[in-house]
Amino acid sequence: MSLSGDSTMYEAFWKSVGAEADTLIAGWTSMSYSSDITNLCWFLEPQLAHQIRRLHKFVGNAVAGVDRFIIVGTGSSQLIQASLYALSPPDAAEPMSVVSLAPYCPSSLHKWAGDASKFTGYNYIELVCTTNGPDDCDDPDDPKREAILREALLSFSDRKTVHDLAYYWPQYTPITHRADHDIMLFTPSKSTGHAGSRIGWALVKDRAVAKRMMQYVELNTMGVAKEAQLRASKILQLVCDAYEDPERDIKMKLFEFAAEKLGNRWGKLKKVGSASSIFTVPSFDQISGLFTVPCFTMDVCYFFEDTSSHRPAFAWLECEKDEVEDPESYLKEKGIVVRGGSRFGIEARYVLFSMLDDDQIFDLYLQRLAALS
Amino acid sequence: MSLSGDSTMYEAFWKSVGAEADTLIAGWTSMSYSSDITNLCWFLEPQLAHQIRRLHKFVGNAVAGVDRFIIVGTGSSQLIQASLYALSPPDAAEPMSVVSLAPYCPSSLHKWAGDASKFTGYNYIELVCTTNGPDDCDDPDDPKREAILREALLSFSDRKTVHDLAYYWPQYTPITHRADHDIMLFTPSKSTGHAGSRIGWALVKDRAVAKRMMQYVELNTMGVAKEAQLRASKILQLVCDAYEDPERDIKMKLFEFAAEKLGNRWGKLKKVGSASSIFTVPSFDQISGLFTVPCFTMDVCYFFEDTSSHRPAFAWLECEKDEVEDPESYLKEKGIVVRGGSRFGIEARYVLFSMLDDDQIFDLYLQRLAALS
Repeated sequence: MSLSGDSTMYEAFWKSVGAEADTLIAGWTSMSYSSDITNLCWFLEPQLAHQIRRLHKFVGNAVAGVDRFIIVGTGSSQLIQASLYALSPPDAAEPMSVVSLAPYCPSSLHKWAGDASKFTGYNYIELVCTTNGPDDCDDPDDPKREAILREALLSFSDRKTVHDLAYYWPQYTPITHRADHDIMLFTPSKSTGHAGSRIGWALVKDRAVAKRMMQYVELNTMGVAKEAQLRASKILQLVCDAYEDPERDIKMKLFEFAAEKLGNRWGKLKKVGSASSIFTVPSFDQISGLFTVPCFTMDVCYFFEDTSSHRPAFAWLECEKDEVEDPESYLKEKGIVVRGGSRFGIEARYVLFSMLDDDQIFDLYLQRLAALS
Repeated sequence: MSLSGDSTMYEAFWKSVGAEADTLIAGWTSMSYSSDITNLCWFLEPQLAHQIRRLHKFVGNAVAGVDRFIIVGTGSSQLIQASLYALSPPDAAEPMSVVSLAPYCPSSLHKWAGDASKFTGYNYIELVCTTNGPDDCDDPDDPKREAILREALLSFSDRKTVHDLAYYWPQYTPITHRADHDIMLFTPSKSTGHAGSRIGWALVKDRAVAKRMMQYVELNTMGVAKEAQLRASKILQLVCDAYEDPERDIKMKLFEFAAEKLGNRWGKLKKVGSASSIFTVPSFDQISGLFTVPCFTMDVCYFFEDTSSHRPAFAWLECEKDEVEDPESYLKEKGIVVRGGSRFGIEARYVLFSMLDDDQIFDLYLQRLAALS
């Protein structure tokens, strides 16, 4: 049984990899709080740091050389909070506002100011998510760019951004460039499917910001579980190894596995959407002027060395039946687990549907969606 | 290399246990956020919950039956924060004050109001630590009891306590009773030595409080690393197994190993203190009227079924040399790592000395202490 948001689709891949992906931890090892006290992030396992830099280098999705600090966290949720802590002035009279473009994932632990396009304050931190596209600021025709520029006109020097790049991996979106922002967050939860490990990492340019993030993680949890770091390290190592050995079986290549699976699933879902009178599957830019990920359009992917389409981890379904007031509950009654748009700052007639469940659940939900009338 | 505060003394024990204490985690397992969605703490591994209840039952240090909720956390530091969040009124105009008896471990993530004996506000949460004795409120002559009663006269109905029982294990203190407080916090960091796992657990009486604590951990880290939970479960299981099997070698019994080691170390340290003109080793109640753990007196321990003395995890050393202004720095220069009293709200001439380092470090520090002149 899985929670909405799990990435159980990846279980089949790791089963096929087999015992090579086992992690063995002896009872007397990794007992200390620290991993490498010469490193700014003294609780980061050196082998995990090595695999993180290696992975970004060969995928080409982010600048992650030794001049970037790696801060490991208990999932990216902790690192989002650490980033907000690091970017807030230590002597502020009130908490910094946090804004993001709708749809967003609000957290009640912060002073949440909501939709970035509607924010009129001066001091704020903007959370930029890859569901909004990692490189949205580089496109001059992008409405989000306009929103950011509007804020920037008000308070450019105070503008601070945190880039949550959890989905900027080749299976979800064409790798068009090597991202190089001040704070970039990644997690195995979505890239390899290991959500239960609660591991995340931040790539940070500025030493002072990295030190403040460290302070937060130290005070919050005094580090990050060594066992989870060791497994993440093993998993990332195997992902890399499969591409560096030309003799390696294609079934060992994670990104090919996931891209093919997601491509098939998107094809099936759109087919069900076209045939349904209840739910359609709009492209993201049809939902709101602010949705700018052209999820069904094509882009050149430097990783796959081809032109490929976006294959998002979540689909928005639009309820076309006016008499259904609460589509989330309506679908729940029909045995289909989704999350309603109002949770993310958009209209309730849109619901978020996971593309990452295991085959059995995904196919069952698809059958149930097709049977709606 | 270990940080001050590490419990590397336990490495030797787990080495002697050997491969039985290995934890193996297959690549395709424990990938989900959740562990048991029928449990209030849906990310708690059921086998860890089982071992926690089993351990408390046979040690006899806490009431941990199935009518108590177990909330697992990323170390007890996260659970302290979750407790404070749970006990603070959700609509409070300002943060609740947090107080503890000196010496304490302040955290800048909360509104820290300091020493409980000096606090005069109305709304507060008190953090009670086992270094202050787990049952201090039961002794009518205890000055801490007076402090609490004084506050209680001011605002009895608002009094809320969190009991951090990290050291209420037989190697450190005689088990005189089964503790039964509203929120009790435990961690393997001090009980088995596995600080790197960042695992802690709370035993909670009230469902509403447990639910609020869950909300904090969900928002903060969306659960607790599965790998660390699985290893903690294996470690606790082996601790219990060694006592249930009468054929088992004494060297497999964790509490005997640690009690003997600590007893020897305390003997050696007191001998060095008696011979030194620089540092003495006062008993806790000599340091301040508020220190009430009679750490060198005897108590009946129901676990060891004998009368034994306290063997605290940390010793306070008192600097007798008036010209040394900063004993922490003075000792650091001599190659002895300690933490100064001012970090804990007491005078700087007291320094905290760890009794939990591995033999090599402990013996080296002791030699260096003996050589001071």
